[in-house]
Amino acid sequence: MTIALPEQLDLIRQLAAASGDVIRGYYRSGLAIDDKDDASPVTRADREAELAMRALINAQRPQDGIIGEEYGEERADADWVWVLDPVDGTKSFTVGRPLFVTLIGLLYRGVPVLGAIHQPITGDLWLGGEGLPSTLNGERITASASTGIAQARIGTTGPEYLDAARPVFEQLAGQCRYPIYGGDGFLYAQVASGWLELVIEEGLKLHDFAALAPVVNAAGGRMTDWQGAPLTRTSQGRVLAAANAELHATVLPQLAGL
Amino acid sequence: MTIALPEQLDLIRQLAAASGDVIRGYYRSGLAIDDKDDASPVTRADREAELAMRALINAQRPQDGIIGEEYGEERADADWVWVLDPVDGTKSFTVGRPLFVTLIGLLYRGVPVLGAIHQPITGDLWLGGEGLPSTLNGERITASASTGIAQARIGTTGPEYLDAARPVFEQLAGQCRYPIYGGDGFLYAQVASGWLELVIEEGLKLHDFAALAPVVNAAGGRMTDWQGAPLTRTSQGRVLAAANAELHATVLPQLAGL
Repeated sequence: MTIALPEQLDLIRQLAAASGDVIRGYYRSGLAIDDKDDASPVTRADREAELAMRALINAQRPQDGIIGEEYGEERADADWVWVLDPVDGTKSFTVGRPLFVTLIGLLYRGVPVLGAIHQPITGDLWLGGEGLPSTLNGERITASASTGIAQARIGTTGPEYLDAARPVFEQLAGQCRYPIYGGDGFLYAQVASGWLELVIEEGLKLHDFAALAPVVNAAGGRMTDWQGAPLTRTSQGRVLAAANAELHATVLPQLAGL
Repeated sequence: MTIALPEQLDLIRQLAAASGDVIRGYYRSGLAIDDKDDASPVTRADREAELAMRALINAQRPQDGIIGEEYGEERADADWVWVLDPVDGTKSFTVGRPLFVTLIGLLYRGVPVLGAIHQPITGDLWLGGEGLPSTLNGERITASASTGIAQARIGTTGPEYLDAARPVFEQLAGQCRYPIYGGDGFLYAQVASGWLELVIEEGLKLHDFAALAPVVNAAGGRMTDWQGAPLTRTSQGRVLAAANAELHATVLPQLAGL
């Protein structure tokens, strides 16, 4: 499928810019309040950034649907649906690390076709999708061509977030060049950029993965569920991202039976 | 001890700026070559940044000694000795994460009295020392006043780097608010800024800790070895950094017998 998306592409850049402006204002601000607190900087950044993005979508593409982490669904049965996660990586935000990202995905009839991964502090913006080769800050990027497990770098947000896949991850971590922890959505941007070869996670929500699969796949990587199926609106949030098809095929059988 | 350090403070800022210029040029450049390779971007960044810093020190304070991670010692018996680690966190550098730091410590007769922690991509510069309250980008910072283990956030670069302290770390990680992994020297800057309450590490070299202790301590934190002694040139690299004296006193007995 190739789809022309000039209007959507223009809007996704605006969404990244507008949410970034909000989020930067709260980063490293105030006291280290509990990150679940309604008044905490991260909660306020999350909510206000999502409202800013919803306002832009509603103004420019009022026919499109929206599914946001903070404020739920509106027109979610539309053909085009925007999926928003303003601050993915709330712990990174709270401890002052510029590793959290804003995730903006666009579904067409339930399938993610365009994604943006934005780090508002450094300004790094990864974009990619159907018919749109992945870029970082406008420069074309490609995932690693390295196919060997022994040369691979493998990441996950934390072993403590893995349940069914934990033994597989730990075995691979021992065989790989080295494991990388932390990073949430940032990990998948690293795969798209050629800096990381594998990510295994589970328990992800639609707003966690909708933006990621288009960026990874349009960079030449392969991101699917644990049966090798493309991620869609109804996927269960068990994901494998690999830098290339060969590496994906090597790891997939270890996850398919879980 | 209070020491006036205008000349040294001016020089340490120049060292951070000069090494940052070199390092930014190699960040995310070239192919993902093995990070131990002589031609890899991280090795070139490390070496060329250290040479740039050595040239500045030799030009401005030729009587001072230098101990660098890459090029060893010169005049190491001088009263004032600069301790340099251009890229602390080589994995972060190699996988494209802006968490690596440049560490610049200054010893007076074997004791760290001034430190700089610099993140060259975001430009964040932490400075602190004897008679110099810690700052981040010129703004005064103070470590967290939170004294409870249950509220604390605890960090270490990776459980795989802990040996003797691993059981203690894992027990504390279970009692704390949450653990944070990765970050190398960046973790200690987080303690100084009030974003993290505890760091436990072992196996550190002089160039890993010389810059950190002045910044943590001048922010009101307490960073010592596992016997509670101040870190000096001859310390064995087993360190505890706590946001305040009370938290330090709570954790220290669990490490002192190791």
